[in-house]
Amino acid sequence: MGLEIERKFLVTGDAWRSAMTSSRRLRQGYLAIDGQTNVRVRTDGKQSWLTIKGKGEGISRPEFEYEIPPVDAESLLEMCHGRVVEKTRHHVPDGDHLWEIDEFDGRNRGLVVAELELRDAAESFGRPPWLGPEVSEDPRYLNANLALHPFAEWGR
Amino acid sequence: MGLEIERKFLVTGDAWRSAMTSSRRLRQGYLAIDGQTNVRVRTDGKQSWLTIKGKGEGISRPEFEYEIPPVDAESLLEMCHGRVVEKTRHHVPDGDHLWEIDEFDGRNRGLVVAELELRDAAESFGRPPWLGPEVSEDPRYLNANLALHPFAEWGR
Repeated sequence: MGLEIERKFLVTGDAWRSAMTSSRRLRQGYLAIDGQTNVRVRTDGKQSWLTIKGKGEGISRPEFEYEIPPVDAESLLEMCHGRVVEKTRHHVPDGDHLWEIDEFDGRNRGLVVAELELRDAAESFGRPPWLGPEVSEDPRYLNANLALHPFAEWGR
Repeated sequence: MGLEIERKFLVTGDAWRSAMTSSRRLRQGYLAIDGQTNVRVRTDGKQSWLTIKGKGEGISRPEFEYEIPPVDAESLLEMCHGRVVEKTRHHVPDGDHLWEIDEFDGRNRGLVVAELELRDAAESFGRPPWLGPEVSEDPRYLNANLALHPFAEWGR
């Protein structure tokens, strides 16, 4: 079990791309979104995981993650009935921290979000110039919500 | 991934107890019950599993099961918010088949159900004398539904 403590920001501009050290394409689907608990299957094509996230308090949430066979992940993704998020995750180091920048695709194309996992909620970190407004507490940006109400449909 | 093909019967009387070869106490909770998909955590105190069951057709359902650390199971059971089923599972061989007889406890006390897992839906099997009416297609007897609407409350 882990407790995920995460801060999330919008990204402005493309300056982060020159600092990027790695990228991988992720597909993730939501098998169940039940009240505050969701069950996610994620694959990068080589490795796959099943993740359970519980009800959070502020920016921290209980999280359990288990690696599963990729062949299972494909069947489980089909069981998500379209509640699937596609994105490319880029790693961008900044000082002592490693940002994860998610560039969404599919029905969430146009959305770019930077996430930083922290050891504790009070941990300080630098603000790189491409960092936009914080959205840590905005539920629309939860990936489970992006699967249900994708970015492309927000304006409608 | 597996496809679970299972037939389920009520049990009449106690004659099966003399044929019982093993028993173990199970606690299982439902982390998510979302449409036709449910996510279950189960523990017998020594081993624990996370199971995803999909939408079934008749008596068969897709099922994915992963063993998880028992310490995770305890935390995950707490995340089920009371949607927990307690039972003792007895193994009762009959001819070539091994029946699982679930003697429920807690809010489902009084309910005893016999289950037989089959290799295919057409497989034949003997009817031991303690076998009562079939309930394979009655959704009330799904363990996920027993967690939400326990047997003790059916009469109300």
